[in-house]
Amino acid sequence: MKDVEIEFVGKRPKLTEPLLIEGLPGIGDIGRLAADQLCEELKAELFAYIYSKDFPPQVMVKEGGAIGLVKDKLSFYHGKKDIIFLTGDSQASTPKGHYELTSAILDLAESFGTKVIYTLGGYSVGYLVKDPKVIGAATDRDLIDRLKRHSVDFENHPGSIIGAAGLLPGMGKLRGIKGACLMGETSGYMVSDPKSAREVVKIMAKILGVGIKLTALDEKVKQMEPALKQLKEMHDATQYVKKRRPPEEPSYIG
Amino acid sequence: MKDVEIEFVGKRPKLTEPLLIEGLPGIGDIGRLAADQLCEELKAELFAYIYSKDFPPQVMVKEGGAIGLVKDKLSFYHGKKDIIFLTGDSQASTPKGHYELTSAILDLAESFGTKVIYTLGGYSVGYLVKDPKVIGAATDRDLIDRLKRHSVDFENHPGSIIGAAGLLPGMGKLRGIKGACLMGETSGYMVSDPKSAREVVKIMAKILGVGIKLTALDEKVKQMEPALKQLKEMHDATQYVKKRRPPEEPSYIG
Amino acid sequence: MKDVEIEFVGKRPKLTEPLLIEGLPGIGDIGRLAADQLCEELKAELFAYIYSKDFPPQVMVKEGGAIGLVKDKLSFYHGKKDIIFLTGDSQASTPKGHYELTSAILDLAESFGTKVIYTLGGYSVGYLVKDPKVIGAATDRDLIDRLKRHSVDFENHPGSIIGAAGLLPGMGKLRGIKGACLMGETSGYMVSDPKSAREVVKIMAKILGVGIKLTALDEKVKQMEPALKQLKEMHDATQYVKKRRPPEEPSYIG
Amino acid sequence: MKDVEIEFVGKRPKLTEPLLIEGLPGIGDIGRLAADQLCEELKAELFAYIYSKDFPPQVMVKEGGAIGLVKDKLSFYHGKKDIIFLTGDSQASTPKGHYELTSAILDLAESFGTKVIYTLGGYSVGYLVKDPKVIGAATDRDLIDRLKRHSVDFENHPGSIIGAAGLLPGMGKLRGIKGACLMGETSGYMVSDPKSAREVVKIMAKILGVGIKLTALDEKVKQMEPALKQLKEMHDATQYVKKRRPPEEPSYIG
Repeated sequence: MKDVEIEFVGKRPKLTEPLLIEGLPGIGDIGRLAADQLCEELKAELFAYIYSKDFPPQVMVKEGGAIGLVKDKLSFYHGKKDIIFLTGDSQASTPKGHYELTSAILDLAESFGTKVIYTLGGYSVGYLVKDPKVIGAATDRDLIDRLKRHSVDFENHPGSIIGAAGLLPGMGKLRGIKGACLMGETSGYMVSDPKSAREVVKIMAKILGVGIKLTALDEKVKQMEPALKQLKEMHDATQYVKKRRPPEEPSYIG
Repeated sequence: MKDVEIEFVGKRPKLTEPLLIEGLPGIGDIGRLAADQLCEELKAELFAYIYSKDFPPQVMVKEGGAIGLVKDKLSFYHGKKDIIFLTGDSQASTPKGHYELTSAILDLAESFGTKVIYTLGGYSVGYLVKDPKVIGAATDRDLIDRLKRHSVDFENHPGSIIGAAGLLPGMGKLRGIKGACLMGETSGYMVSDPKSAREVVKIMAKILGVGIKLTALDEKVKQMEPALKQLKEMHDATQYVKKRRPPEEPSYIG
Repeated sequence: MKDVEIEFVGKRPKLTEPLLIEGLPGIGDIGRLAADQLCEELKAELFAYIYSKDFPPQVMVKEGGAIGLVKDKLSFYHGKKDIIFLTGDSQASTPKGHYELTSAILDLAESFGTKVIYTLGGYSVGYLVKDPKVIGAATDRDLIDRLKRHSVDFENHPGSIIGAAGLLPGMGKLRGIKGACLMGETSGYMVSDPKSAREVVKIMAKILGVGIKLTALDEKVKQMEPALKQLKEMHDATQYVKKRRPPEEPSYIG
Repeated sequence: MKDVEIEFVGKRPKLTEPLLIEGLPGIGDIGRLAADQLCEELKAELFAYIYSKDFPPQVMVKEGGAIGLVKDKLSFYHGKKDIIFLTGDSQASTPKGHYELTSAILDLAESFGTKVIYTLGGYSVGYLVKDPKVIGAATDRDLIDRLKRHSVDFENHPGSIIGAAGLLPGMGKLRGIKGACLMGETSGYMVSDPKSAREVVKIMAKILGVGIKLTALDEKVKQMEPALKQLKEMHDATQYVKKRRPPEEPSYIG
């Protein structure tokens, strides 16, 4: 096994200047939820697995006991615009591993003629977000303008983007590939934020000019509502207590 | 010294499609205890040492002061079915090291014609277990069915298996080798759980169709009884206190 | 991408035995602040970017959303004495990465004929410093004597210097390149200490025999004054409390 | 610079089956203190520096401001029995680095014809030791017997020995080089334990059959006496308090 191993499943697809759209585990699991939803709705077809010696040294066990190595997946979609989707179980576990995995993926994307990359992720704001916006960053002026027309927010911006969502556009730029990152706002308190992922999917669908049903994500949002309500109540209660305590009142610490 | 070095002791044995059975240090030391017991009862013969630059950088000192590098061991057993046992002091200490050690072992197993791998380990459940079950996971439908017939449990399952116990079947699958992992349930409170290891040995013996005396593990179980009793009492006492406090009673924090 | 990649921007400049002056992120951000200020005032011209697989695996996002890989920069200045400036976003994130990045930079400096290196940094003293001194260390007797004439302090000295500021002179020495490190005193409580950086710039300007306007750093010092005043008051208050409590008074702990 | 670089100072010495004696920083700094003392008393001559990319990425600064890379040193002594001493600033900072540094040193020792290695270190016991013993471990029966005749203790023994003190004999054994480790008992509370180092030097001198003056270590022991007395008093006071508090007395927390 090489440091990064790309194993094709069946024949190598023929694609014309495919977009690369990435969504891997990360903040609020937003990138993965969004990319998985796009893949599923567009019936993208799996064509390769990616293994890496820098993935966590473990296997995933599915319901029923089936074992599979930690891996990422490449799927393709034939449409007005061809697309390669990068989804999967994991990002690299070391700095060097991140750079090498991204390099290997860019090599592959280049071999297919990719000119533009979109990466999907989350942006942690530290408070409960009612209507999550989608924040953007890009390597290219034109791309920024195009995303603004789709109401991607460029007012707020993170100081940095960690992992594949940042490195794919960043390293792509050195090879002349344009790239943008779309980040759904999220509180940072939730491991999984389907509500924010839904906003990312909506914008990505508009950019691609395709219709995407949101039923699956809507369902996940509904499932989370009780937990979210409780979180909000706890949060409000704390705020209330904070407000009620008069600031003059001395606080006794042990 | 290479990154992973396999040093043969004496002649290379002649084996026919040997099973590979792995039991290295891990959760509750169950894998190691079980594999060591099988090795001993089957009088498996040591034929190679494995050294790795990713093992902890230390030597083991035995009673009497004899120094030996941290190493794993390969032993073989000639029977109805030939077996290679992988046992020893340590697993790799980095993600990459885990992948490379597993690769080297699979290279060796392939060179002997291995077609099936069993890995032995523990599964931490977070509470005291009276009658530990053996949980299974496998890369292959047939193997799952065969294990179920030996009362291996596939209802409960861990989300992932870390280290050699997971990577050997996971990476083996990419080479067309079938693999299964047998995990003895354990509380997670004990560094060493011979009672759980005993269950793993029982099932492995049934799968192999060999008789294994459990005297040595029985002895270890008996030695642990006083400590286990104390642990249980402490545990029950905590439960009692927890139950006695009325839930309506407000708890004051700061 | 190689482990360390140096990407030239336009033509390779022609330089005569250029000094190498380094200022990267570190204690109190002093090295970076000082080198950036020198670069700006001397209108040094960017000629290369440095990328490394040991930099943090992330991109920086600028106001407006533009993405750029984490990178360091090489700029040059033509004067009485030619200078190469090494500035940028980051140092390496692993021990080995530090050695390899420094090696690559020394290779490049040697190819330009560099004979002397100055590195700029901070020296954390653990208390608020009113008039920060500049502490020196060097690989060469002559260089120490020259710096002493510019009132660099060699009485106090750190036991060690971590990162590029130490490795560039240290590894340079093995290649026959002389090197010195200038460290501005700083409390260690501030992420950014422009006041200390200003002292480093003053001395570096004297060594280079160039006039450097300090307006930009003066401005930053002024901006920090309120925060600094508050820090001082908090500090003094603590001292007061400490002094007031009679030492005979027993302190009750639990 | 290679991963491990050995830089000769002047001519390569001619040595006959030299012993290798190692003493690097470690528990209680005992190995380094002991080896430095032996080097100094035997007027061993420096002949090579060792640099490693796995040493901490820093330089050491001496009194007066002179910078030097972190490095280890090889010195030789011509006598009844030739000796190579390995002393210096640091051990490797990663598991792999430890194995590779030890490999490089063994390559060099083999090239000189070394047949026996002694490593010096500390053994942390967790309580104040009045008369520190010297604990031994070795790869070879004969060596154990020889050391026992010099009153090295083989009754107590550590379960493992971490770093160069363990790996040099451990990896040496694979090449047919015999090795032993001598560990001075130490509390583990002191960064530097010259009293324990003195015992190691005494035994090593007897093994080598040379006279070693202990004046320098005696001086260091005397300097530490006040600090040690205070440590002992604090320790005894705690014991007293512990004994005095009746176990029935409830303890109030918070």
